Amino acid sequence: MFGFENEREDILKSIEDLISRKRYAELRGLLLPMEAADIALILENLPEDGLPLVFRLLPKEQAAEVFVELDSDVQELLIQGFSNTELKEVLDELYLDDTVDIVEEMPAGVVKRILKHSDPDMRKSINEILKYPEDSAGSIMTTEYVDLKRDMTVKDAFKRIRRTGPDKETINLCYVIDPDNRRLIGLLSLRTLLLSEEDTVIGDIMETNIVSVTTQDDKELVAQALSRYDFIALPVVDRENRLVGIVTVDDAMDVLQDEATEDIEKMAAILPSDKPYLKTSVTALCKARITWLLFLMISATFTGLIISHFENALAACVALTAFIPMLMDTGGNAGSQSAVTIIRGISLNEIAFSDFVPVVWKETRVGILAGLLLAVANFVKLMLVDRMMLGNASVTPMVALVICCTLVFTVTSAKVVGAMLPLLARKVGFDPAVMASPLITTIQDAVSLLIYFGFAALFLHI
Amino acid sequence: MFGFENEREDILKSIEDLISRKRYAELRGLLLPMEAADIALILENLPEDGLPLVFRLLPKEQAAEVFVELDSDVQELLIQGFSNTELKEVLDELYLDDTVDIVEEMPAGVVKRILKHSDPDMRKSINEILKYPEDSAGSIMTTEYVDLKRDMTVKDAFKRIRRTGPDKETINLCYVIDPDNRRLIGLLSLRTLLLSEEDTVIGDIMETNIVSVTTQDDKELVAQALSRYDFIALPVVDRENRLVGIVTVDDAMDVLQDEATEDIEKMAAILPSDKPYLKTSVTALCKARITWLLFLMISATFTGLIISHFENALAACVALTAFIPMLMDTGGNAGSQSAVTIIRGISLNEIAFSDFVPVVWKETRVGILAGLLLAVANFVKLMLVDRMMLGNASVTPMVALVICCTLVFTVTSAKVVGAMLPLLARKVGFDPAVMASPLITTIQDAVSLLIYFGFAALFLHI
Repeated sequence: MFGFENEREDILKSIEDLISRKRYAELRGLLLPMEAADIALILENLPEDGLPLVFRLLPKEQAAEVFVELDSDVQELLIQGFSNTELKEVLDELYLDDTVDIVEEMPAGVVKRILKHSDPDMRKSINEILKYPEDSAGSIMTTEYVDLKRDMTVKDAFKRIRRTGPDKETINLCYVIDPDNRRLIGLLSLRTLLLSEEDTVIGDIMETNIVSVTTQDDKELVAQALSRYDFIALPVVDRENRLVGIVTVDDAMDVLQDEATEDIEKMAAILPSDKPYLKTSVTALCKARITWLLFLMISATFTGLIISHFENALAACVALTAFIPMLMDTGGNAGSQSAVTIIRGISLNEIAFSDFVPVVWKETRVGILAGLLLAVANFVKLMLVDRMMLGNASVTPMVALVICCTLVFTVTSAKVVGAMLPLLARKVGFDPAVMASPLITTIQDAVSLLIYFGFAALFLHI
Repeated sequence: MFGFENEREDILKSIEDLISRKRYAELRGLLLPMEAADIALILENLPEDGLPLVFRLLPKEQAAEVFVELDSDVQELLIQGFSNTELKEVLDELYLDDTVDIVEEMPAGVVKRILKHSDPDMRKSINEILKYPEDSAGSIMTTEYVDLKRDMTVKDAFKRIRRTGPDKETINLCYVIDPDNRRLIGLLSLRTLLLSEEDTVIGDIMETNIVSVTTQDDKELVAQALSRYDFIALPVVDRENRLVGIVTVDDAMDVLQDEATEDIEKMAAILPSDKPYLKTSVTALCKARITWLLFLMISATFTGLIISHFENALAACVALTAFIPMLMDTGGNAGSQSAVTIIRGISLNEIAFSDFVPVVWKETRVGILAGLLLAVANFVKLMLVDRMMLGNASVTPMVALVICCTLVFTVTSAKVVGAMLPLLARKVGFDPAVMASPLITTIQDAVSLLIYFGFAALFLHI
């Protein structure tokens, strides 16, 4: 499996070869033992005309599993080519949450066709889930769970699971609801059921301390709860505590992976996208990146103005100019380190706004310590390398002192600003991730320069 | 549950209050319905002397669950205070993989005590797992799985699951092994078992196309496979295809979260740590950050040298200095965007080294497009804002042309370098994540300056 990435080329070649020689039985035999996600990867890399042909070779159930794993543009292509019967066959095999995911990505015409060929119950459920906000627990839940009643015996429960189980996304956790109002009153693992006597009553063995989420909760919080409590599924209730669905661990994992990617993109000043890189067009990539580049470029006007303002100082001591990039970069890097650490801490719910004072105090100390170490190292370097080895006489001990004092104050202020901005952003409801490196760098550039020229005026009297 | 973060203070206060008034029964009643992860969070925030007291109030099974969720320093504190009987009681309730996690974090003396009080089978298993390399599948697996034989009937299987199930980490997936050599020959979900007739033979219904990993596989790959195939557990085999353990989805989620954090830290030039921020000391934070800061600071010597070298050019046209920060930042930001995108793509296995040419070609086009847009915007801004509004006469159209041409070439080269470095790092076996923002910024600073002075020489003849 792990050699797969490298083998892909070979497999693709042999499949195209089998297609051209019309050796379909052999082709089918090749695909049958493979995992759905792997077949999907192969299909996505096939030429468009071979795609429906290979897809039709798969048995019904496997075909549906593969379909779910395909990129939305490939799914659309396949649906366009499906007969109504074929479409219905695939739809019948899909779990509800997967169908909703597909519907969300399709153009209106295709959605209409999908809904038309779903059975009425499914259609109703799809429409209901589509109503939930995009990033809510409701939007990623499935309504295909096993529900039991409090007064059933273990034997009854097994009967019900055997009867309804095949269509459920998971049977490992069963939910006990009050039949009158569908309120969630208990939770039972299949393990507990198996280890109990046949005539035990469900109400006596069910777990009543239930962690649940509401349809409106943010899907990232839901995913984190699943991860935090090591659950396989989490029940989703509405405002009246009625059970409406469950979120399973596989979807939670996808959410966590996507959110990490999104955070990383935002930290690098990219507008997040949910398409894989290789499938994103040049203009789409450019669009996602240009906004912040433009904003940051224009913001750099301030740094320009500061430098212009101190033109005479720079003219009086030309050596100073050469160290501007180093000071700005070090400040930017120091600030990014703090910002990124705090942002990730917030994402993982390890740091909250109530930690503001200890965090800022910690960063202040880290900043002073790191700044001092860097200053000492830099002083030695300036004297030994720049002055003695490179013979740059304009790097006087006084100039070195200006640079090193600037370092201490720049690094410290960068650390403090880098820690404060994400926390403040969180407090006022912004996304902390956009407060990362690039924005901090731009702010810190101006701060570093002001500190630099301040010390230059103090020590060099310019 | 989600209001928990805010409620923590209140709960802590009422717990401390109950302790001081010795209302232990009430305290126990408060904790009993809570999830282990939540109780752990509370215990970690209790004063040290209250900790063992509250822990002892928990029933045996819940106590063990809570113990697993505690930070290693709190675990150590508790173990130090345990009597031998208490230690044994907790150990008996733990799953093997959790015990191994704990042992890995403890000082030698405590490890010795833990091993001494584990039962002989457990001790043997712990020692075996400890032998696997730190980031391998072997190190995160558990050996507590349900194994079945091919010739058992479904009824036999249920009997075996009922008998051995209580000690197994998961019973949702069962593994069929050849009793002679313990080779993995099949896989069976509890769902399939439940939906089959009692006298069906396991060999007839088991799944034989099994995705498995070996003990030596990287745990990140294993976690990604679990996520990719939506599995609840993945079997781990040795080189002879003998089943030695399983990795469960909850551990895989932790691995994915940790790896994302690690990547983010590396991208921000921080040496990764596995302690939560608020528990990390100032010196540890400083140590994790100073290495790269120092290296990048020293590397900036090159930028300094370039500026020194072109001192006369800058003196001849003082306006040029003011735009150095903007050009360097824009180049750095553009490069980071590409680098971070590619690094994440590599992490998610979406981009491989074989995509080198298409990736670089795509980034080249994105770079030219973004560079041109930025250049046009900047030209307008230079003429309207700097020249007309701010009355900066030294910003001539010719100077603006130099700046804008530099922008196009800087952004393009930054995009290309930003995309190439992570891919090349991957190829030669380095971690792509360290090729991110800060390193690219430093390289790009020098490149930007050279381009800048090149265009200045060309257009301004200085």
